[in-house]
Amino acid sequence: MPSYKAPVDDVMFLLTDVFHIERHNNLPGFADATPDLIAAVLGEAAKFCEDVLTPLNRIGDKEGCRRHADGSVTTPTGFKAAHKQFTEGGWVGLAAPAEFGGQGLPTAIAQAVSEFVCSANMAFSMYSSLTQGAVAALFTHATAELKALYLPKLISGEWAGTMNLTEPQCGTDLGLLRTRAAPQPDGSYKITGTKIFISAGEHDLAPNIVHLVLARIEGAPEGTRGISLFVVPKFLPASDGGAKGGIGARNAVSCGSIEEKMGIHGNATCVMNYDGATGWLVGEANRGLQAMFVMMNEARLNVGLQGLALSEVAYQNAAAYAKERLAGRALTGAKFPDKPADPIIVHPDVRRMLMNIRAFNEAARALVLWTALKSDVAHRSDDAHEREAADDHLGLLTPVIKGVLTDQGFANTVLAQQVFGGHGYIAEHGMEQFVRDARIPMIYEGANGIQALDLVGRKLSKDGGRALRTFFGEVLAYIKDHGTDAAMAPYTAPLGKALGELQEATMWFAQNAMADPDNAGAGSTDYMQLFGLVALGYMWCLIAEAAKGRAGDGADERMAQRLMTGRYFMERVLPASSAHLARIKAGAASTMALPLEAF
Amino acid sequence: MPSYKAPVDDVMFLLTDVFHIERHNNLPGFADATPDLIAAVLGEAAKFCEDVLTPLNRIGDKEGCRRHADGSVTTPTGFKAAHKQFTEGGWVGLAAPAEFGGQGLPTAIAQAVSEFVCSANMAFSMYSSLTQGAVAALFTHATAELKALYLPKLISGEWAGTMNLTEPQCGTDLGLLRTRAAPQPDGSYKITGTKIFISAGEHDLAPNIVHLVLARIEGAPEGTRGISLFVVPKFLPASDGGAKGGIGARNAVSCGSIEEKMGIHGNATCVMNYDGATGWLVGEANRGLQAMFVMMNEARLNVGLQGLALSEVAYQNAAAYAKERLAGRALTGAKFPDKPADPIIVHPDVRRMLMNIRAFNEAARALVLWTALKSDVAHRSDDAHEREAADDHLGLLTPVIKGVLTDQGFANTVLAQQVFGGHGYIAEHGMEQFVRDARIPMIYEGANGIQALDLVGRKLSKDGGRALRTFFGEVLAYIKDHGTDAAMAPYTAPLGKALGELQEATMWFAQNAMADPDNAGAGSTDYMQLFGLVALGYMWCLIAEAAKGRAGDGADERMAQRLMTGRYFMERVLPASSAHLARIKAGAASTMALPLEAF
Repeated sequence: MPSYKAPVDDVMFLLTDVFHIERHNNLPGFADATPDLIAAVLGEAAKFCEDVLTPLNRIGDKEGCRRHADGSVTTPTGFKAAHKQFTEGGWVGLAAPAEFGGQGLPTAIAQAVSEFVCSANMAFSMYSSLTQGAVAALFTHATAELKALYLPKLISGEWAGTMNLTEPQCGTDLGLLRTRAAPQPDGSYKITGTKIFISAGEHDLAPNIVHLVLARIEGAPEGTRGISLFVVPKFLPASDGGAKGGIGARNAVSCGSIEEKMGIHGNATCVMNYDGATGWLVGEANRGLQAMFVMMNEARLNVGLQGLALSEVAYQNAAAYAKERLAGRALTGAKFPDKPADPIIVHPDVRRMLMNIRAFNEAARALVLWTALKSDVAHRSDDAHEREAADDHLGLLTPVIKGVLTDQGFANTVLAQQVFGGHGYIAEHGMEQFVRDARIPMIYEGANGIQALDLVGRKLSKDGGRALRTFFGEVLAYIKDHGTDAAMAPYTAPLGKALGELQEATMWFAQNAMADPDNAGAGSTDYMQLFGLVALGYMWCLIAEAAKGRAGDGADERMAQRLMTGRYFMERVLPASSAHLARIKAGAASTMALPLEAF
Repeated sequence: MPSYKAPVDDVMFLLTDVFHIERHNNLPGFADATPDLIAAVLGEAAKFCEDVLTPLNRIGDKEGCRRHADGSVTTPTGFKAAHKQFTEGGWVGLAAPAEFGGQGLPTAIAQAVSEFVCSANMAFSMYSSLTQGAVAALFTHATAELKALYLPKLISGEWAGTMNLTEPQCGTDLGLLRTRAAPQPDGSYKITGTKIFISAGEHDLAPNIVHLVLARIEGAPEGTRGISLFVVPKFLPASDGGAKGGIGARNAVSCGSIEEKMGIHGNATCVMNYDGATGWLVGEANRGLQAMFVMMNEARLNVGLQGLALSEVAYQNAAAYAKERLAGRALTGAKFPDKPADPIIVHPDVRRMLMNIRAFNEAARALVLWTALKSDVAHRSDDAHEREAADDHLGLLTPVIKGVLTDQGFANTVLAQQVFGGHGYIAEHGMEQFVRDARIPMIYEGANGIQALDLVGRKLSKDGGRALRTFFGEVLAYIKDHGTDAAMAPYTAPLGKALGELQEATMWFAQNAMADPDNAGAGSTDYMQLFGLVALGYMWCLIAEAAKGRAGDGADERMAQRLMTGRYFMERVLPASSAHLARIKAGAASTMALPLEAF
């Protein structure tokens, strides 16, 4: 069975040495988050993830969720008790506003904890992530009354949340959405329609489940401009007020079936039937997509994190196996002549696989935490200019983090499985579960092709390209400032080359997408990947700079290892950038040439 | 449920227009194989695969194999009847020698049929592939007596075969093998030991299963030089002679358990216990690895083919879905304004995924058939020089085909699944099964890292680099001969660049592997991938040349489509070559730098 050790030290290094979290102490919730407190929180989370959630991961995969004839759903053995412990620990509301019972800690810390939870048990982690997404949407858009009714319950984790977007005929193209909402005299709506692929749509972890549902108010415009967001609880709040904890009548929403799927078996993926279910509008009528996007953006960052989380746990197990499994001898001569063979980690190709994953994980974690800190600034700063810059960063980096971290996270679970040879294909080692689980983050919350289109079609030109200019400016300035330092040149020089390619690609789009928008579409995924390489490369520069500062004292071997892992990234991962640029500049012609009938 | 249409026309085009199979009419079995006969054979195979095997694929995945208390194993519903039909059709012995009841047709035709069978139902296809592997080993190494006893039964498909190499403590490193063989006075051996991961080790498709087993004769040298190959039947041939069909006493070999695994559920992966089972030596004592390698090389080509086969069927279903599923509008304006949305195939990023797969499939199929024809020459030509050249080709290309076609085949099933969005993650569409099934070819018959090492560590320098020089010479001459043709330049120019990079990488190894062998090890996988790109690129040149010759008449749209798909390959797939070269030239330093404890 796989094991897991949460990378607490890495997170501490990133938050303190690389990103200097203390510089944000002017933001609400930050001053309390001293290094000691952060370490204590992460340590507690690590313990819970390692001891309680990790052992349940395989059980969840094997047992899956079961739907009963009455539409109720049972989660795998142990999930309910673990969820109780999780909510009682206050983990759901770690970064949620204190006014509604949250702990108000930085999002960056909550994200680090989310990584641990997901590494330990992705299917389990989704229940609380969706609740956190519902909190975000309600907090930003709901009326004070709805907030008072739902937020405390959700933030404490007593109630759970979901997102309901997809329907059988529509996923990406929400304009095709059919679920309808009929206004009622009391201001509520009757919701009717079928939603599919609803993660955690029904389960036994909470006495009430609060669905956020996209639907079309009767008479609303067609397409995406006629979609509204509703809150539709499984049980109506009791007439004495849900805030006091009461649960009233069962609402007309039920789970019609659960999907048989490739992975995340421990999380119920439901078909949800709304048969005139009572719901309340969240935000403005016909502006549901905007409201939902608040939730989506949080969710997308969290999904990117899932890619990293599975990559990390897969890496740990592959590294352990590679140190233990004996086969062959090192090409440079036996390293363990007293053993019948050397451990396979002596072989360069095995090392290559491990280093690929590791070089990604450490930089991806930095990218996530850097962006989480921006999210904190965006939501908590009282300086409008700072908020705008942070928002720009979030808008630009969200599709990159979602797309690149999940693509590479999946690829890394495959590499880690490969280290196990045949044993990786067998269920008992758990490696194949990581692969199956890691596959869905590439698809849900907007398939990665949609992330690429969002980046290229929307984010590049938004506000006259302001976000992009700021990002390029920051990286360029960094390279300029540090490139003359001989110790940093092995990092800044390759990054400079990749950044140049990214800028060239951007320019190419500017010059060629007008004549044929397909030129942008056909290059979008390569652009996103190229952007990801530059972003991760920049993270490696920041990590190397911090590690270099502390490697001198000779006390910390980890610092030297970070410097070397960064070198690996620059030499072995970053060179893919040129291929991406070449593909982008090939344009759309050969991609689009075949007639439809040819396929 | 997925559908499948065997690419008969593509195979015919490759065999006749591209590879001019009629030029081999001097080889035994070829003159009979007229284009009409080939088309008839492929047509029959296609029908069987489409109508009988395809519908059983999902059933096989869902039901899996069941082991009973007595050690017997039941295959999924329908497999037994299909296998009966398959053997009665003479498909197992399609290319097997006529003297033992085979049809003696070219291997190239049998490989084409194998692709169809595997696309339709990979788990099913493995039963007969393993039998074919056993035939190859026995035919090449067994005594006349053993041949007479076993070959007719195996070639007819009445009996089945297996390969038994892996043990719990050894997979890649067969030197660690422990299964032992005790010589008996009658010349037979008693085999004792445990083998794991034995595909088709036990099942109900045949009354007898013939195991080829690696074991160590008592007193044999340690390591790989003390390993011998044995034939160990489940039932001993009856005293009246197995050739007459009799089955005698049950041998002391049994299936201890079957593995729960990621995919290929329809094929039983068995732990096989040998408890003093009677076996007979195949080939020379202590030369078992050499004998097994005959089987392994056939098997490796067949495993490469599995990568292509799954890529093909996944492509077909993704293309169908992309033409049917509606979402969004083409960036260049609505293509189907009368529909609520355009089919997703109008989107460049969807098209990119489909074209990536397609550009691989068509060239990979060419590479397989080209190599299968070389295999025919190697086994059937009476010209020693021709045989040597063909053998060189097989030795050089086998690891490339195994490694590259399975890596890319898997990646393509993932792309095809991505085209389906969330529906790809759900079992009912069958796309996730393709991904799970396609994962094992990257691992078995020598994990792909081992293929890369075989290529770089053995095949490059074998016979003073003769095979490599011949391959480079052929591709170079082709580029020189056709590069001046303006219509061919878009194909030959990019290939020339990639070939130059491959040569540069080869030179780099020659100059740097002596000083540090890890420099070769660390670059081996990138080298294999780079080699694969060049080989596939060369196939595209040959295809383009043939298609160009026939596109002129305007009668065949497919020819123009081939030319365009080849352009896509050159512009969008081949550019990865530079990144491979950069990684190779980075050397082993950063890959090997971290101490073991750091992992």
